[in-house]
Amino acid sequence: MTSMKEMESRIRELEEQLRAERQKNDQQRPIREKISQMSSEVVDSNPYSRLMALKRMGIVDNYEKIREFTVAVVGVGGVGSVTAEMLTRCGIGKLILFDYDKVELANMNRLFFQPHQAGLSKVQAAAYTLSSINPDVEMETHNYNITTVDNFQHFMDRISQGSLTGGPVDLVLSCVDNFEARMAINTACNELGQTWFESGVSENAVSGHIQLIEPGRTACFGCAPPLVVASNIDEKTLKREGVCAASLPTTMGIVAGFLVQNTLKYLLGFGQVSYYLGYNALQDFFPTMRLRPNPLCEDSHCRRQQEEWANKAPTNPAEADMAAGGDEPVVHEDNEWGISLVDESAPSEEPEGAGDVLGLVQGVKTAYSLPATTSDAKEEAGALAADADVSLEELMAQMKTI
Amino acid sequence: MTSMKEMESRIRELEEQLRAERQKNDQQRPIREKISQMSSEVVDSNPYSRLMALKRMGIVDNYEKIREFTVAVVGVGGVGSVTAEMLTRCGIGKLILFDYDKVELANMNRLFFQPHQAGLSKVQAAAYTLSSINPDVEMETHNYNITTVDNFQHFMDRISQGSLTGGPVDLVLSCVDNFEARMAINTACNELGQTWFESGVSENAVSGHIQLIEPGRTACFGCAPPLVVASNIDEKTLKREGVCAASLPTTMGIVAGFLVQNTLKYLLGFGQVSYYLGYNALQDFFPTMRLRPNPLCEDSHCRRQQEEWANKAPTNPAEADMAAGGDEPVVHEDNEWGISLVDESAPSEEPEGAGDVLGLVQGVKTAYSLPATTSDAKEEAGALAADADVSLEELMAQMKTI
Repeated sequence: MTSMKEMESRIRELEEQLRAERQKNDQQRPIREKISQMSSEVVDSNPYSRLMALKRMGIVDNYEKIREFTVAVVGVGGVGSVTAEMLTRCGIGKLILFDYDKVELANMNRLFFQPHQAGLSKVQAAAYTLSSINPDVEMETHNYNITTVDNFQHFMDRISQGSLTGGPVDLVLSCVDNFEARMAINTACNELGQTWFESGVSENAVSGHIQLIEPGRTACFGCAPPLVVASNIDEKTLKREGVCAASLPTTMGIVAGFLVQNTLKYLLGFGQVSYYLGYNALQDFFPTMRLRPNPLCEDSHCRRQQEEWANKAPTNPAEADMAAGGDEPVVHEDNEWGISLVDESAPSEEPEGAGDVLGLVQGVKTAYSLPATTSDAKEEAGALAADADVSLEELMAQMKTI
Repeated sequence: MTSMKEMESRIRELEEQLRAERQKNDQQRPIREKISQMSSEVVDSNPYSRLMALKRMGIVDNYEKIREFTVAVVGVGGVGSVTAEMLTRCGIGKLILFDYDKVELANMNRLFFQPHQAGLSKVQAAAYTLSSINPDVEMETHNYNITTVDNFQHFMDRISQGSLTGGPVDLVLSCVDNFEARMAINTACNELGQTWFESGVSENAVSGHIQLIEPGRTACFGCAPPLVVASNIDEKTLKREGVCAASLPTTMGIVAGFLVQNTLKYLLGFGQVSYYLGYNALQDFFPTMRLRPNPLCEDSHCRRQQEEWANKAPTNPAEADMAAGGDEPVVHEDNEWGISLVDESAPSEEPEGAGDVLGLVQGVKTAYSLPATTSDAKEEAGALAADADVSLEELMAQMKTI
């Protein structure tokens, strides 16, 4: 029979074990205290010291301004989740996350989500992790598909009123994996005059890109055939057929890195923001270029924004370079988009009439032409071939099959 | 006074609470079951489906071979931790991690570590997280500084005997932040004939690089002045002085992405492995090049490896391109390193005698010259200037101040 003494000792033992387990649980979610002001102080306990050092290094004038910005991330998958994590660690003011998918073990070959989150909604799982990492960042999440009519209206509302001050967000980052969602973002941003970045990773996992879209100033997603888009096939469709697109944590992490690096440059005003930056993993090849808007774009809001830019541009010296080429748009009249690719490169064998060279980095030529050897390079560089007309036609043909 | 009944009920209560807390902890660490064989099956529960799809996409012949490889990651900080995570998610066979530092809140502006890990050793915290993500990866950790005499010998032993089969590891990835540790890795790898990748991020956080070093075949870290090395100043030194280097999750994530992408290409035999790939974040500029070994290298093991390669190379057709230039090494006799930079680019204004163009991608020219506008670009591209002699001298002067 059990004595009182044995029971007392059992109680003490259990209490101690319970304390240990509770402590372990607390350590699993130990949210640091919020920090009211970013400090440059160099102590181990300051999560912002290495970021504020960007000021002393002469890279950024006013790093703490990052706290005033709101960024919407649409799609919290392989690229979007890492994008949100980078912005969170950089101390962005507010994030608005949109996704309707759930975490699956099949996502574990990409960064960010962990196996114990399988089954949770991506936005919920992401918000939990991101708040643990940096509780100073305000999080707003929407667990829905932006392409349905009701959700699209709500999406527009949040983009136009979701910032920290109740106004439009500072930037929208598209990290979605299908054509419909990209078109929805494009439609919303054209109507609102909202600047956004498109991003994508190819189905074979070894190429990707980012593209800055300023409605009226650059080609919108409807102006030009999408050049290097991840996959026109929704992952769900692929699943049904028993096949799936390949993906790699490397390619997706790199594209997220390019996206956030250019977001930081855009928001904080340092360096040179890339209009289009591609990545070919097989050859470590990085094409850049700029796409002019298409005067015949089917989106009436895009055409309206183009007119507004045309009227505004001459008064703004910063727009001079973009406007300069705008007077004489290079139009390929034999294609129904009526647009051409403006290539920032100046290869020595550049064909005549290949377009203006805009915003070229002094002393730098980014040379590219179609490497004929690998099918991936072809996919990446398709539109960048020396014979631009042919490439455009090919791309249009691809577009029509979507 | 407490009755037996009350004590019994208290025990039952405590046991229940303990069970609940333990369950919570288990959920926090829900380690998926190990998977004995990689499958291509497209189901949500298969963490390898998107990687095995690389075979169907025609990118990799034999993806599952990744399970046979062992990679050593030296330095588990901003670059090394993400590198280890990417390799873990890719299903690498075994990782050997080396670091002697502790996690601090000041590391939270980079990916991977979370605030609740502050105070833990980096290798311990990393191994815990990585095993949760993918329990199929074998982990070996060493919480020490490889540069001390005893540790260096142990480090050499693990590099040469640490693989899954007890032989040398397949690749060493240097993700350290100081010159001494890089030289220690270089010395070990030269002696062992071990192929490794060097990586680095600049102190101002806006540039970085990776470099493949095959002892005897390419320049070792001692052959050539280090070109774009993160910082010659140990973070500890900087802390003492109340200043610190800047860092960004973007730049470090991108460098880790380049490192692991090229590691995958090297191990699995697809695409083209970059010998040197630089990243200038301000301008999205990516120089590539190849450095030949220096016949006068001070490291006797490097000179021995060069001889062995010279004897071996002609019999191996794959070495033809590297050996081709080797017969007539371009030697700058006015510098004590006796080496020159072999630039893979072929800009139209390339100075005469700028060296052979090796391993050039068909149809692609990576044009670069020194953009004089930003100090960062200068730092990045220093050695790549049109006037290579001057750059080398500048670099040598910098080397001597280390």
